[in-house]
Amino acid sequence: MNKKKIFNDPVYGFIRFPFDFLYDLIDHPYFQRLRRISQMGLSHYVYPGALHTRFHHALGALHLMTRAIDKLRLKGIAISDDEYEAVCCAILLHDIGHGPFSHALEGKIVPVHHESLSLAYMQVLNTEFEGKLDLAIKIFKNEYSKSFLHQLVSGQLDMDRLDYLNRDSFFTGVAEGVIGYDRIIEMLHVVDDQLVIEEKGIYSIEKFLISRRIMYWQVYYHKASVAAEYMLILFYELLKKSKIIVTSQSLRYFLEEDKTELSPELIHEHSKIDDIDIVFTIKEHKNSNNKLLRIISESILDRRLFTCHVNNAPHSSDLKDMLRQKLTEHYDIASSDASLLICEGKEEKFAYDQTENEIIILKKDGSVINYSDATDFNIENRNTIKYFMCHPNIKNVKFAVPNPI
Amino acid sequence: MNKKKIFNDPVYGFIRFPFDFLYDLIDHPYFQRLRRISQMGLSHYVYPGALHTRFHHALGALHLMTRAIDKLRLKGIAISDDEYEAVCCAILLHDIGHGPFSHALEGKIVPVHHESLSLAYMQVLNTEFEGKLDLAIKIFKNEYSKSFLHQLVSGQLDMDRLDYLNRDSFFTGVAEGVIGYDRIIEMLHVVDDQLVIEEKGIYSIEKFLISRRIMYWQVYYHKASVAAEYMLILFYELLKKSKIIVTSQSLRYFLEEDKTELSPELIHEHSKIDDIDIVFTIKEHKNSNNKLLRIISESILDRRLFTCHVNNAPHSSDLKDMLRQKLTEHYDIASSDASLLICEGKEEKFAYDQTENEIIILKKDGSVINYSDATDFNIENRNTIKYFMCHPNIKNVKFAVPNPI
Amino acid sequence: MNKKKIFNDPVYGFIRFPFDFLYDLIDHPYFQRLRRISQMGLSHYVYPGALHTRFHHALGALHLMTRAIDKLRLKGIAISDDEYEAVCCAILLHDIGHGPFSHALEGKIVPVHHESLSLAYMQVLNTEFEGKLDLAIKIFKNEYSKSFLHQLVSGQLDMDRLDYLNRDSFFTGVAEGVIGYDRIIEMLHVVDDQLVIEEKGIYSIEKFLISRRIMYWQVYYHKASVAAEYMLILFYELLKKSKIIVTSQSLRYFLEEDKTELSPELIHEHSKIDDIDIVFTIKEHKNSNNKLLRIISESILDRRLFTCHVNNAPHSSDLKDMLRQKLTEHYDIASSDASLLICEGKEEKFAYDQTENEIIILKKDGSVINYSDATDFNIENRNTIKYFMCHPNIKNVKFAVPNPI
Amino acid sequence: MNKKKIFNDPVYGFIRFPFDFLYDLIDHPYFQRLRRISQMGLSHYVYPGALHTRFHHALGALHLMTRAIDKLRLKGIAISDDEYEAVCCAILLHDIGHGPFSHALEGKIVPVHHESLSLAYMQVLNTEFEGKLDLAIKIFKNEYSKSFLHQLVSGQLDMDRLDYLNRDSFFTGVAEGVIGYDRIIEMLHVVDDQLVIEEKGIYSIEKFLISRRIMYWQVYYHKASVAAEYMLILFYELLKKSKIIVTSQSLRYFLEEDKTELSPELIHEHSKIDDIDIVFTIKEHKNSNNKLLRIISESILDRRLFTCHVNNAPHSSDLKDMLRQKLTEHYDIASSDASLLICEGKEEKFAYDQTENEIIILKKDGSVINYSDATDFNIENRNTIKYFMCHPNIKNVKFAVPNPI
Repeated sequence: MNKKKIFNDPVYGFIRFPFDFLYDLIDHPYFQRLRRISQMGLSHYVYPGALHTRFHHALGALHLMTRAIDKLRLKGIAISDDEYEAVCCAILLHDIGHGPFSHALEGKIVPVHHESLSLAYMQVLNTEFEGKLDLAIKIFKNEYSKSFLHQLVSGQLDMDRLDYLNRDSFFTGVAEGVIGYDRIIEMLHVVDDQLVIEEKGIYSIEKFLISRRIMYWQVYYHKASVAAEYMLILFYELLKKSKIIVTSQSLRYFLEEDKTELSPELIHEHSKIDDIDIVFTIKEHKNSNNKLLRIISESILDRRLFTCHVNNAPHSSDLKDMLRQKLTEHYDIASSDASLLICEGKEEKFAYDQTENEIIILKKDGSVINYSDATDFNIENRNTIKYFMCHPNIKNVKFAVPNPI
Repeated sequence: MNKKKIFNDPVYGFIRFPFDFLYDLIDHPYFQRLRRISQMGLSHYVYPGALHTRFHHALGALHLMTRAIDKLRLKGIAISDDEYEAVCCAILLHDIGHGPFSHALEGKIVPVHHESLSLAYMQVLNTEFEGKLDLAIKIFKNEYSKSFLHQLVSGQLDMDRLDYLNRDSFFTGVAEGVIGYDRIIEMLHVVDDQLVIEEKGIYSIEKFLISRRIMYWQVYYHKASVAAEYMLILFYELLKKSKIIVTSQSLRYFLEEDKTELSPELIHEHSKIDDIDIVFTIKEHKNSNNKLLRIISESILDRRLFTCHVNNAPHSSDLKDMLRQKLTEHYDIASSDASLLICEGKEEKFAYDQTENEIIILKKDGSVINYSDATDFNIENRNTIKYFMCHPNIKNVKFAVPNPI
Repeated sequence: MNKKKIFNDPVYGFIRFPFDFLYDLIDHPYFQRLRRISQMGLSHYVYPGALHTRFHHALGALHLMTRAIDKLRLKGIAISDDEYEAVCCAILLHDIGHGPFSHALEGKIVPVHHESLSLAYMQVLNTEFEGKLDLAIKIFKNEYSKSFLHQLVSGQLDMDRLDYLNRDSFFTGVAEGVIGYDRIIEMLHVVDDQLVIEEKGIYSIEKFLISRRIMYWQVYYHKASVAAEYMLILFYELLKKSKIIVTSQSLRYFLEEDKTELSPELIHEHSKIDDIDIVFTIKEHKNSNNKLLRIISESILDRRLFTCHVNNAPHSSDLKDMLRQKLTEHYDIASSDASLLICEGKEEKFAYDQTENEIIILKKDGSVINYSDATDFNIENRNTIKYFMCHPNIKNVKFAVPNPI
Repeated sequence: MNKKKIFNDPVYGFIRFPFDFLYDLIDHPYFQRLRRISQMGLSHYVYPGALHTRFHHALGALHLMTRAIDKLRLKGIAISDDEYEAVCCAILLHDIGHGPFSHALEGKIVPVHHESLSLAYMQVLNTEFEGKLDLAIKIFKNEYSKSFLHQLVSGQLDMDRLDYLNRDSFFTGVAEGVIGYDRIIEMLHVVDDQLVIEEKGIYSIEKFLISRRIMYWQVYYHKASVAAEYMLILFYELLKKSKIIVTSQSLRYFLEEDKTELSPELIHEHSKIDDIDIVFTIKEHKNSNNKLLRIISESILDRRLFTCHVNNAPHSSDLKDMLRQKLTEHYDIASSDASLLICEGKEEKFAYDQTENEIIILKKDGSVINYSDATDFNIENRNTIKYFMCHPNIKNVKFAVPNPI
């Protein structure tokens, strides 16, 4: 049977994939589970359209991969059908290890990076499909000779980034994030097994870097998005500390003790948890006897977002002391509990991170140079680190906040 | 404090509402709950982008209402600020009574139409807000003298339809559903307190009717969408019959016995349930001892959609007998249980339903006529009823199906 | 040298064509001339964005052709590279015979249909390119065995229609004209050398037919568009009658006497005229001694559009008599001259013209039926003929007009 | 009569203007003439969709102005109806002085900047409309107390720039040029009669500056666009030198001698010339006896674009000597004539030009700072000047070109 079903993607239109095996993977419960894992955590609290999932993103990245490979083949780059299929599998599964709310709770439920989990999932699936993923795994781990295949999965201009920036921009409605992905794909080439960009695509790269920077500061690190994320983390940490809780059977498995060995059993248990388990648990704690859990659960459910302060330097301990005191009084809780309600963190983002591998530009004469040498655009930024501090929004209490963005 | 926050809607761009009270309603937990109620049930199983919620739809319909009122005022129609605010409240809350998965489970959890629930919600909110919703409720119930205000909330060309067709088309990616809402709003007018359409908007009406018809048959009544909906209903009905189940506390309240009195208590309990309760319960039954619940739960979670047959006449009992037998054998279940796995229904849709109030056209000379007399377009359809039958997809078994669409 | 240049089409994005010879044709002065022939005559007087040209349309139709052929090949339809190239040439050149302002002046400058001229152009080019267009010409004339290739160039669902409806909708901003071309192309198939549509594409066909009908009545036969077109025709007819005129050398050749033999010489002369010759000539007659020419030239240049009446029956001679008298007085001209200023015509359009070859639907069981038997949609229309009458807009004079649209 | 006609703009949808007088201006022949003046010169030779005109741009800028004023009024900025109407007139007419092909031939036909001509047109119209443009002219000349009104017409973030970047991006299909104009308008405010941007709009400004930079280097200064522009200039300069030419009566007036006094008579003559006069004249010289005119006319008409070299430094005289010699031989012309065929120029563009007035940012605490102090974005660029050199593309002759973009 020809499985080549068409997906109707509002971002790209009709999309269809060139190998039946890709449909076997998509139909697998481990992959279908991604339908219940939101791409952007709780960002839909800020951008109501942003309800798209890892499932949709994975299909989108796969679609871009097929376009990139078709384009490179047209330019004469040798890519066998086996390599084509493998790089498609690698991009399709690159995020399969994500857990509930993707990055928001990353490292909290299982204390590893999602890419390690993705790899573990691939290995389990490889066993089930009797080695069909061998080459995909080599590419994913960058152990295959044609490096450009790995770079298409994970690199400065990989299909993952191209899809998520484009897709997040579409569903949030943030026009500033539109990246011109088709132009970038049009300009891809390969020299010495490395992915390069043809010189006339240099402005598209510039636009891409700026759009990405804007998406980070305006969307992903938007104060309210950060507040919602910190609230989720706080909920999960309080939950772990709590003795008597109502939750799903699957989530309980992870709450009881930290699991660090990425065994097939762990992967199978992990495949059972998704956003639903977390939100269900939050709902069941809206009336908890545990005051902190009750405060945070109600705040998340009814969208009473924490107030969020941003600064170019760490927040002062004076400010935190003052806050702790107010919270202690307001909620009639212990000072140590009030401390828990003050969430801090910092985020860093460059327009162009030269510590990663450079983007390589292919000049018309056939030579290559680094993007940072080719561009007329000044790629260095000021203030690339922001310090965030969030806490419950107590009515009638105002805080002096220096230098907000 | 000026609350006039801007929402970034990928469908309409930046939207902002003209009354602070609208933001009070939006911030209410009863309304925030709509963030967890999907607009299109499980249609995202067919159209992966269709994850938008009743929350987003309500904001969109409100936005169109503000544009319609502004336009009518520009044309000299007298609409006071109180009337403006009231009609905004009415459209904002018109769907607040929807339960989990909107229409898919409508009438199953509480055996009434969602509009009755919406009205009951409004009355509870009206008490809480000390009568501020009096006029909105009169408009919603069509008890206010200026009928056109009700017609903007509920009528052939109301802001509800304009938004949902437009929004569902956007998120599904079905270009055939695009309706040109701005042109329709541009052409609205009022004659003798009735909403009318200026004559030169007649083609936009034609386009609107066809787009709506297409959205019904291609999206809402798409075979796979119908299958998913019937599966949800089957799950819920099996759940109700089952004795020992794991579910949320709130849903248990509704499962225990049918609640028919729309008291404030019932509304408050109803406000606690949403998609999460249903999906959580499905997840917990994936390994149920109840074989039927296990089959249906697994089928929903892993997206093993039932096979769906469509016909212009009822499906024959011979076909159903044959199916029942196959299912009995395949699953090793009682014949009566196999019957439960065969779900039937019919759906009807006209391009233009003349049994509703007619769309009124305003001619250039100031006279009005019914749309059905004004149009050159033949509004009668053949085969407006389709009969659906769904059942688990048993491999290696083929069914002769007459006349599929 | 690889000529495979990319065009940036705001309608389809980056487009590129698969044969070098197509670029040779595009670069030919006969084809470049289409850059100076507007697609929609003077419709930009009504829809200011509609300035696109036959050049752009031809590229767009070619792009859709490459997508259609790629799709059919994927479905296993045998199409050789020679056939592919030929059908591309045929669609690229299908409109090369259009003269100034396309349909608006069609048959006026050379008294034949534009398709006859296109064929004559192709034959001249075939000589120049030493027979490379032999197969393209056979396909264009429907003399080739694989009829579906001709049907892709000229038929109910040809790439010409798909592109012009889509493109005209894009540049006019008329959302009602959006047709979902990608879905239609996705559903194309071939049975017994005939182009067919897969059954599940039936709603897209319905949408296409309605969109087309709307584009005709709302855009192409918009009263102001028709007025502008009749004004152009009137100008040209007055010009032909006039003795002493200022015009371009090339246009003079056609004004002097009717040319009917489509010789290579005529084609070469024809290739020299385009919109520029007409507009230049209009500009030079803004101050003409010939009163009628002066009136019409000024009216066109300064966009003083004629008043246009539309009716479901021919306009009465009483009305015309009255008009003639008013114009006679107003302009102080002879009654016979006033008659010339009253332009009449009629336009007819069906949603679906069954006198053309039917659209064939391919059912899932492999059988085929006519669209008119397959659809639930009522394809018959009322009032498919409209009678237009246009005349200069004389201030302070009102005309009773029955039944305007 | 209410003139408030709706325009259907593919860029913004339905647009309508708030004052009848604006429609009087639009209907004036001086303004209608802008329908025949392309916005982007010959850029449609590179981007085939870019056929839009100054007419369309002026309407678009006017539309954005109405949105900006409505927004500022909502924020409590006092703007009287007279001021509203005047600033609308000023933006509507800001480009009315453009001549054929806009910037491409600017300063060639009348040796002044187009803004001086726009002002002269306004003054003529002001006489005709009996002083109705008094305030508009004051605003245009920045002689009115409320400076922000002038800044909306001409400044770092004026409605002119917002429209042309947005519109040119739309019609070229260059997604990198999309600027998020609605967000910028949403963030406008006024402090001390100066236009400012609210702090949270700072990323939109960043995006705007980059998009603008990209539009300049990728579209306006695209090598082929520059080549086409230089060819137009060369044609016009050769035409001026030539004795016996065929051209329109109106253009002849300007070719005979340089007109520098912007008298009402000159304006009236200027209003008669547009793109048509130029293209007609080019067409008539395709077979000229003047060899240079013949070469350039044929090259323009048949789109044989000159080869264009870009450099970060002036091109060497050695290169030019070599080129001159090749051209001399190839065309069998005098060396001095060959020199004429080598066209040179340079273009400069900053992402953010601090020599203009700074963009002012309004912080949340009510204080204001310069954009260059507020942004984390590094606004300085390298290589802001490019040196262009164009010449006829002689087959079989290759030139060593250093450092092309």
